[in-house]
Amino acid sequence: MATQKPQPATREKENEDDIYLQQALEEAKVGLNEGGIPIGAVLVHEGTDGVRHVLGMGHNQRVQKKSPVLHGEMDCLENAGRCPASVYRKCTMYTTLSPCSMCSGAILLFGIPRVVVGENQTFLGAEEHLRANGVEVIVVQDASCVAIMKEFVREHKVLWEEDIGEPSE
Amino acid sequence: MATQKPQPATREKENEDDIYLQQALEEAKVGLNEGGIPIGAVLVHEGTDGVRHVLGMGHNQRVQKKSPVLHGEMDCLENAGRCPASVYRKCTMYTTLSPCSMCSGAILLFGIPRVVVGENQTFLGAEEHLRANGVEVIVVQDASCVAIMKEFVREHKVLWEEDIGEPSE
Ligand SMILES: [Ca+2]
Ligand SMILES: [Ca+2]
Ligand SMILES: [Zn+2]
Ligand SMILES: [Zn+2]
Repeated sequence: MATQKPQPATREKENEDDIYLQQALEEAKVGLNEGGIPIGAVLVHEGTDGVRHVLGMGHNQRVQKKSPVLHGEMDCLENAGRCPASVYRKCTMYTTLSPCSMCSGAILLFGIPRVVVGENQTFLGAEEHLRANGVEVIVVQDASCVAIMKEFVREHKVLWEEDIGEPSE
Repeated sequence: MATQKPQPATREKENEDDIYLQQALEEAKVGLNEGGIPIGAVLVHEGTDGVRHVLGMGHNQRVQKKSPVLHGEMDCLENAGRCPASVYRKCTMYTTLSPCSMCSGAILLFGIPRVVVGENQTFLGAEEHLRANGVEVIVVQDASCVAIMKEFVREHKVLWEEDIGEPSE
C-alpha cells in the first residue's frame, strides 16, 4: 500500500478522458477520410453506479451532409438522440477542438456539466462563456488534435472560415 | 406631401417584419400539425439592392426527426444550407419564440446581426447574451405566437422540458 499514489479516482478519470478523447480524434479522422472537416466528438454518460458509457459519437458534417449546423459536437448530440435533462447532467462532452458559440450554447442548453477539449490553439471557442456558466472545461492541448486541424486549415482555409462564420478575404 | 408620415423606410421594414414573422408562425403550425413542438423560423437575406428574400424556413424537429438539435432556428439554418459569412451578415432571423442558448450561439457563430422574436413570455432565451454581443433583438410579443406555445406547453409539459433541457419533476 506504500506504493499507492494519491487520488486514484482522479487518475482513473484522467485515463478515461484520454481514451474518450482518442475516440473523438478517431471520429475526426473518419470525417477527414470522407473529405470533411476533421473535428470529432464523443458524449459519455456516467451512471449512478459510476460506470461510464458512450451515448453518442459524431463528426463535422458540413461537406458530407451539406450541413451548416452539424459541427462535431452537434452531430454527436444528434447521434446520441433525444435524452431527458437528467441524463445530460451526468455527461462529459469530448471534442477535438474548442467548442464554438453554437456548440457551447448547446452544451449550456442541455446542462452538460463537463467538457474535455482536445486543443484550442487553432481555434478558441466560447470556453470562457462555458466557465462563466458553471461548466468545467479541461483543455488537453493534445498534439495529434492540433496537428490534424493545423494541416487542414492550411490546406482548406476558405472551407474552414465558412464553418466558423468568418469572412474570407 | 403634408400627409406623409416620417421614416417610411422604418415603417416598410416593420411591415416586412410582420410578414416574415407570420411565415415563421406558419412554419410553427406545420410543426404542430406534424405532432411536433410548434416553433418556426425564417431566415431572410437583404441583397445589395435592398431587396429581401427568404433563404430558408424551418420548424422544431424533435418529435418528427427525433432530433435534439433541430430547434426551429437550427432547422431553418440547416434548410438555408451552406452560406459564406458575408451572406449571414446581411440576414435577419425571424423566430416565433425567444432563441435558446444553442440557437443564440448559432446566430452569433454565423454573425447574423438582427433577430425578430415572436414572443418571450412562455420562454426567455439568451436575448441578453445576443445583445451583449452586438445583435439587434426585437421582441414583438405577438398574441398568436404566445397562444400557440402557451397551449402546447400546458398540454405537453414533459416534451417541452426535454426540448429546453429542463429536468421534469
Ligand atoms: Ca469509473
Ligand atoms: Ca425593401
Ligand atoms: Zn461548433
Ligand atoms: Zn433553440
